[in-house]
Amino acid sequence: MKNIKVFCPGSVANISCGFDILGLCLDNIGDEIIVTEKKEPGIELELTGNYKIPNDINKNAASISAIALLNSYKELNYGFKISIEKKIKPGSGIGSSAASSAGSVYAINELLNRPFSKKELINFALEGEFACTKSYHADNIAAVLLGGITLVRSNKELDIIKLNTPLELFVTIIHPQIEIKTSDSRSIVNRKFEISKVIEQSSNLGAFVSALYNEDYDLISRCIHDIIAEPHRSELIPEFRNLKEIAISNGSIGFGISGSGPSMFSLARGPEKAYFIKKELEKHLQIKKINFKSYVSSVNDEGVKII
Amino acid sequence: MKNIKVFCPGSVANISCGFDILGLCLDNIGDEIIVTEKKEPGIELELTGNYKIPNDINKNAASISAIALLNSYKELNYGFKISIEKKIKPGSGIGSSAASSAGSVYAINELLNRPFSKKELINFALEGEFACTKSYHADNIAAVLLGGITLVRSNKELDIIKLNTPLELFVTIIHPQIEIKTSDSRSIVNRKFEISKVIEQSSNLGAFVSALYNEDYDLISRCIHDIIAEPHRSELIPEFRNLKEIAISNGSIGFGISGSGPSMFSLARGPEKAYFIKKELEKHLQIKKINFKSYVSSVNDEGVKII
Repeated sequence: MKNIKVFCPGSVANISCGFDILGLCLDNIGDEIIVTEKKEPGIELELTGNYKIPNDINKNAASISAIALLNSYKELNYGFKISIEKKIKPGSGIGSSAASSAGSVYAINELLNRPFSKKELINFALEGEFACTKSYHADNIAAVLLGGITLVRSNKELDIIKLNTPLELFVTIIHPQIEIKTSDSRSIVNRKFEISKVIEQSSNLGAFVSALYNEDYDLISRCIHDIIAEPHRSELIPEFRNLKEIAISNGSIGFGISGSGPSMFSLARGPEKAYFIKKELEKHLQIKKINFKSYVSSVNDEGVKII
Repeated sequence: MKNIKVFCPGSVANISCGFDILGLCLDNIGDEIIVTEKKEPGIELELTGNYKIPNDINKNAASISAIALLNSYKELNYGFKISIEKKIKPGSGIGSSAASSAGSVYAINELLNRPFSKKELINFALEGEFACTKSYHADNIAAVLLGGITLVRSNKELDIIKLNTPLELFVTIIHPQIEIKTSDSRSIVNRKFEISKVIEQSSNLGAFVSALYNEDYDLISRCIHDIIAEPHRSELIPEFRNLKEIAISNGSIGFGISGSGPSMFSLARGPEKAYFIKKELEKHLQIKKINFKSYVSSVNDEGVKII
């Protein structure tokens, strides 16, 4: 019976100027999934790692996505065991459910000799994402499956574009060990926006996309603004304003909330700057006695991969 | 006494997905301005051409822009006569005031041996634009002065990016000879927008910018949507819906309102398609007995220029 092991990277959704649109795939930070063929048809789950996730195959994002894939494939006289070593904490804001969902369908598709396109895999993984977040948003999943920095033009048509990744772009992630209710975090979506705000948000996104193609780090730094979610969500994250100030004054070219938080991201040009920013942010959190995890990562242009 | 003659091109603002953000510079369609040095300090106006515009130097966009430039320069013991041959009808929606404003400051800057940067020229030309439109919007002016397709990230900071122009992109302009009150046209700016609309508008803009860099004409065609202005402004333009349908069914990759109308634009890949679409649109307007002007233009990557 064949098996395959894949690295299922974390991801940063939104990147401030692309609320519900942009996603960025991380390296170093991710779950590991081993999918093994088994004699009995259907899906079986095995969970390891430090974090509790559902072990019911109808409630777990990885198995729900896998079932969606198998339902679109011809009937098989064998099945798959999905062993998940969960390394990304659920609710961290760096795409924990997307990593598992994307990882399981990617691995099974490889074992089946790739009957499905990446776009079809996104569709299956969305079912797992929906089970966790109650909405069909492809921003994290697209980044994990395609790698690099992705833009969801339409969730409905599943029109997804992989943008260019500037080579020297590095990400610092700070994950304060607190819980945010997703319901609090999503409540902002019921508001309405003045036309001036619509223009501000979208002009920053348009300019950011241009900056990625021109590898213009100065322009990137002028675009990383979020007038939609950050003004509200940042209230739920202790020390957000101070951390942002520390990052920017130490050379960050952009600081914001990763997904719906509580993780925060900082962008920097080159790994040295990214590590320096990480150290400065850590110092502040230690003084404030807030527990955290922190990482530095390049942009993972490959996405989910066999290891 | 030196003189200079410049071609002051028309432009398409908004391009559907970039309300108040995008501008595209046209070729073939534009005013001509001759600026001649004169012995007496100050600005003098001479107007020719088919269209009536103010001949008071404090009310004419070209002279107001020129005065703004001279006020930022050292005192001169001579002046300039601006002769405008107006070929773009004011209120047409293809940047009539921007053409005059940009053209006059460009010409004077050349005669002075370029003391000012393009960005500074945009600032001066904005004064002329403000006199006509009562708002500081650089979308048309940026396209005319920089050429190509431009994105205004911020009017306040005057942060403007010149995007990439796909080589085979051609524009068809249809200008029905009707008047639209600018006040009717601007009334949409007082509305508020649901978050889903904000995301739709900005994801189309982000994807459009990516499509320009990748010269992806299919993606361009999926991005040219305007959920902000078109649903309202199109009501003011007779036959808009039918014309759009005719353009799209004849190979247009995008059809919308140019600026605040009544001119409409269609994008196409290659000049043959653009001319064919023009012919089909003309047929329909002739049947409906609506007077119009129509043009086909490549994207003018150079912008305003000496002729």
